[in-house]
Amino acid sequence: MEEKEISQAVVGRLPRYLRYLGELRDEGIERVSSQELSDIMQVTASQIRQDLNTFGGFGQQGYGYNVGYLYDEIGKILGLNREHRLIIVGAGHLGQALVNYSNFERRGFLFCGLFDSDPKVCGQKIRGIAVRPMEEMAGFIRDHNIDIAVLTIPKNAAVETAEQLAACGIKGIWNFAHVDLRLPGHIQVENVHLSDSLMKLSYNLSSAEEET
Amino acid sequence: MEEKEISQAVVGRLPRYLRYLGELRDEGIERVSSQELSDIMQVTASQIRQDLNTFGGFGQQGYGYNVGYLYDEIGKILGLNREHRLIIVGAGHLGQALVNYSNFERRGFLFCGLFDSDPKVCGQKIRGIAVRPMEEMAGFIRDHNIDIAVLTIPKNAAVETAEQLAACGIKGIWNFAHVDLRLPGHIQVENVHLSDSLMKLSYNLSSAEEET
Repeated sequence: MEEKEISQAVVGRLPRYLRYLGELRDEGIERVSSQELSDIMQVTASQIRQDLNTFGGFGQQGYGYNVGYLYDEIGKILGLNREHRLIIVGAGHLGQALVNYSNFERRGFLFCGLFDSDPKVCGQKIRGIAVRPMEEMAGFIRDHNIDIAVLTIPKNAAVETAEQLAACGIKGIWNFAHVDLRLPGHIQVENVHLSDSLMKLSYNLSSAEEET
Repeated sequence: MEEKEISQAVVGRLPRYLRYLGELRDEGIERVSSQELSDIMQVTASQIRQDLNTFGGFGQQGYGYNVGYLYDEIGKILGLNREHRLIIVGAGHLGQALVNYSNFERRGFLFCGLFDSDPKVCGQKIRGIAVRPMEEMAGFIRDHNIDIAVLTIPKNAAVETAEQLAACGIKGIWNFAHVDLRLPGHIQVENVHLSDSLMKLSYNLSSAEEET
């Protein structure tokens, strides 16, 4: 349990490493020391070494890290060397915002279908993807080999829908509904609780005010 | 530094406590033990006691926690007992999705203005809020006592806009742009990097596959 939590914390930092390494690579920089990476990322060099050592370590004493190699390796660790096929459940503003992010597709996350319970929305096309009624969801997942479902529906509907998705054999749920989903352990759930993040900002504003 | 990071981890968990306590309260439950809270939240009871002790502890040996009191106190710690006045910079789908979340308003986060650099969007109204040109942003922040700016614009524009916001005296930035902002220390920044979250899901899918 403890071990798993540590690793989730490290995993949570990997996308950030990838982002900075991608920028270095785009600038034509070929190698970087943990100290240089530490300066630009504002994380301690020992944290960086420790994080990367979790996956076997990629650096060489006195040389540092090869930027391109490390970028590719972290990408592989994150599973970005394979394609994921996604559906979005909930074609509201948030669902539409996600479909329109071309960055996800560049990373191998392909939005294949959109579903909504509102008949008025069904049939509309968003970035070329037709919105389908919920009844077609199970069949679509099977027929199109979908592995991830994105939940952008209200809390009340999310629990039941997540259970349906689990029964359809979905492997992962990216959940934006304001509820913690309880699903069988083999289904991976990643929650984005936006209001939690806003409250954290609110806390930091209050405590900054107290300090002054 | 170490101390601050620990506390940010605790702070990050407070909104989740608030969510569960709110549900208990709505069910009419008046008191709860750390063990009961542990069962429903799937966090260890010792973690709960430790987290709450950071803020002085709210429980009583043999009684547990008073649900309503603890809910209110955590709300105060999170600064939810005061109003925040927000603007959204970037009136695309994501900005619109956020304006339309009525939950934020119920928590005291009031969306007062919307700004966009696209002249075609300016003048449109979203949930009764007119989209204004970027040139009016600085004056609006002063005139309407805005403390939080939400950045839902692309990465390229975000850095410069954040610096403008800092110069206008904004206190907090809720950043959805895919870049880490470097701002003076008195400005609180909370990042929501959606693709980081999706990559974490991708990692968990890959590692779950390896296990089977």
